Amino acid sequence: MANSEAAPGVRSYRKGPERRAQILLRAMELFAERGVGASLRAIGEAIGVSHAALRYYFANRDELLVEVYRTHENRVHEAQARERSAPEAVSAVAMMERSAERNRSIPGLVELYATLTTDALQEQQHPETRAFVQARYQRVRADLAERVRAGQESGAIAADVDPEDAAALVVAASDGLQLQWLLAPDDVDVRRSLELLERLLPGAGPAERTAAEP
Amino acid sequence: MANSEAAPGVRSYRKGPERRAQILLRAMELFAERGVGASLRAIGEAIGVSHAALRYYFANRDELLVEVYRTHENRVHEAQARERSAPEAVSAVAMMERSAERNRSIPGLVELYATLTTDALQEQQHPETRAFVQARYQRVRADLAERVRAGQESGAIAADVDPEDAAALVVAASDGLQLQWLLAPDDVDVRRSLELLERLLPGAGPAERTAAEP
Repeated sequence: MANSEAAPGVRSYRKGPERRAQILLRAMELFAERGVGASLRAIGEAIGVSHAALRYYFANRDELLVEVYRTHENRVHEAQARERSAPEAVSAVAMMERSAERNRSIPGLVELYATLTTDALQEQQHPETRAFVQARYQRVRADLAERVRAGQESGAIAADVDPEDAAALVVAASDGLQLQWLLAPDDVDVRRSLELLERLLPGAGPAERTAAEP
Repeated sequence: MANSEAAPGVRSYRKGPERRAQILLRAMELFAERGVGASLRAIGEAIGVSHAALRYYFANRDELLVEVYRTHENRVHEAQARERSAPEAVSAVAMMERSAERNRSIPGLVELYATLTTDALQEQQHPETRAFVQARYQRVRADLAERVRAGQESGAIAADVDPEDAAALVVAASDGLQLQWLLAPDDVDVRRSLELLERLLPGAGPAERTAAEP
């Protein structure tokens, strides 16, 4: 191999992580532009990284897709941590509205997400993707259920709403609406439909929401 | 070809549709058992139909997947037409609850549906799938929006709810919940989450609903 990647066995521990991060970034840009339909080989060609180099950093296409999505999520969480000091003040639905709004500017991302969740259904062919998606859903639902509980404590959400049922509903609505919007941008308005759901699962009240979301 | 299919050009118009329907049925059974991950060739092998024969009836894997899904939908509509005389009495959410309940007994079906919707996002690679999925969403949303309007006329649903926004929300919730349920059957309860949504978009009232749904 004449390029900058070391061959397996003589792995350069200093350059490795940087190069890996660089590849992930370029893959993310590629997916945003052209979608995720390509093979690992085609992805390598498109981002100017040899197939051998890609295979050095990622066991297979599944791992690359998962890592690209994970990188995106980490960036979002870092940005959120910088922006807000009290994330728990945001309602479950408002949380998903923001996420959908962000994703809107990165079209390839919803496609990547849809690919990961569909692959996850095929346990035999995509075991690692399945584990990643299952863990992610569990984490997101737990976070949203907490927000629903906070809404119940503040009196905004009816006490007899099951927080877990509500959390699954909010995630489902957000996922499904983004997909429908990509297929029919003139007919589907993610924000308006989610605002409808917020009537059922409101935040901590208009005053507090305005304070938490400048 | 030694099997029952005629070679292209000597298409048997009498046997053709029957054989095609038979292949669709077997493909549907295969997907229910083992998922949709296989190539057209592997599908042919699994259902005992030569690749050439499969290609005679279906231009490619996308067409087979779409036709299998369409066949399932037609069967459901026929069963509905037999069972009920007044489908418009059923609320939008109850409609999706029933659909989810049916799909639950055919696990491969939700995977097939997820595959079709994800493929649909890739306009370049799957134009026919995209057209099918777009038309299906449009049709389902229009039907649900009608049910929301009926709910508004009966006074069950708030008059300021936009029927189209509500329809997109209900489809999204139903799609997303079924997917989450497949990945975490112990954590997600499709019916309970949808019943939560029905608080926002109720049917025509308990009395009428009981009458319409024996």
